[in-house]
Amino acid sequence: MAEPPVSALSTLSYADCSIGRAIDILGDRWLLLILREAFGGVRRFEAFQDELGASRSVLSDRLARAVEVGVLRRVPYAEPGQRPRNEYRLTRKGVELLPALLALMEWGDAHLMETSPPIRITAGDDHEPVHVALVTESGREITDVRELHAERTVSGPDPS
Amino acid sequence: MAEPPVSALSTLSYADCSIGRAIDILGDRWLLLILREAFGGVRRFEAFQDELGASRSVLSDRLARAVEVGVLRRVPYAEPGQRPRNEYRLTRKGVELLPALLALMEWGDAHLMETSPPIRITAGDDHEPVHVALVTESGREITDVRELHAERTVSGPDPS
Repeated sequence: MAEPPVSALSTLSYADCSIGRAIDILGDRWLLLILREAFGGVRRFEAFQDELGASRSVLSDRLARAVEVGVLRRVPYAEPGQRPRNEYRLTRKGVELLPALLALMEWGDAHLMETSPPIRITAGDDHEPVHVALVTESGREITDVRELHAERTVSGPDPS
Repeated sequence: MAEPPVSALSTLSYADCSIGRAIDILGDRWLLLILREAFGGVRRFEAFQDELGASRSVLSDRLARAVEVGVLRRVPYAEPGQRPRNEYRLTRKGVELLPALLALMEWGDAHLMETSPPIRITAGDDHEPVHVALVTESGREITDVRELHAERTVSGPDPS
């Protein structure tokens, strides 16, 4: 029944796969928006609220969830004359979501914007444009997904 | 206030950015799981239901949403002696979400699994392992996100 590019990835649908676990955590609009803001340098409750327009209860719930799953950590701070509070910073685990967020950005740029991309990601002193790619160990970039295979590893768990 | 790796990407938080639009569509657990299954070769309503255990109403709603936003398309089919029905296939727009889903998988592999990765993605006849990478136009892979800059493009819309 399956045909390229679908067939190549058929084993992705294991119920216990790591995509499923990642989706269980990140398949939430507010949590993804919080992460986007965190990459943008936002750290404090009020700043998240200003940027996102979420209710205090939703924001509070999702920030706690982000800490619980380990993508943000609480760091105490105190303004002069005020009680200590916490701000929220990306952990390494959180920072490592950047490729996924940039992949979403590129997809949004290609398919959801009427104008040219509002933001360009570049790297290094010469500001060379950067994109998200599927790359082999020898550095070859895969442009046709029909080339891809998804293979069960010997050491992985049984599908359930 | 911001420090690396945060500062480099501060302009990502524009309210009107393409990440935000992508999140508005994809920040939904069921829709992401449906896409995962679609990449796995699932096409028919009952097969999605078997894999995901979603209620008929949730599944029906999310499949309609996936068609509405253009990541799946309906294709009629008929089993002998039965009325014609629709199955759901990935569009090109849907297929182009693969890097985002594979980035989530790699993140899940690295941070959510107790065992080694259950699935390995490879490419070509020699089944060379493939990973999601941030790559410059000249083919250099960026491994330190502190190298990245996010720059407003001249042609992009004003932030709002």
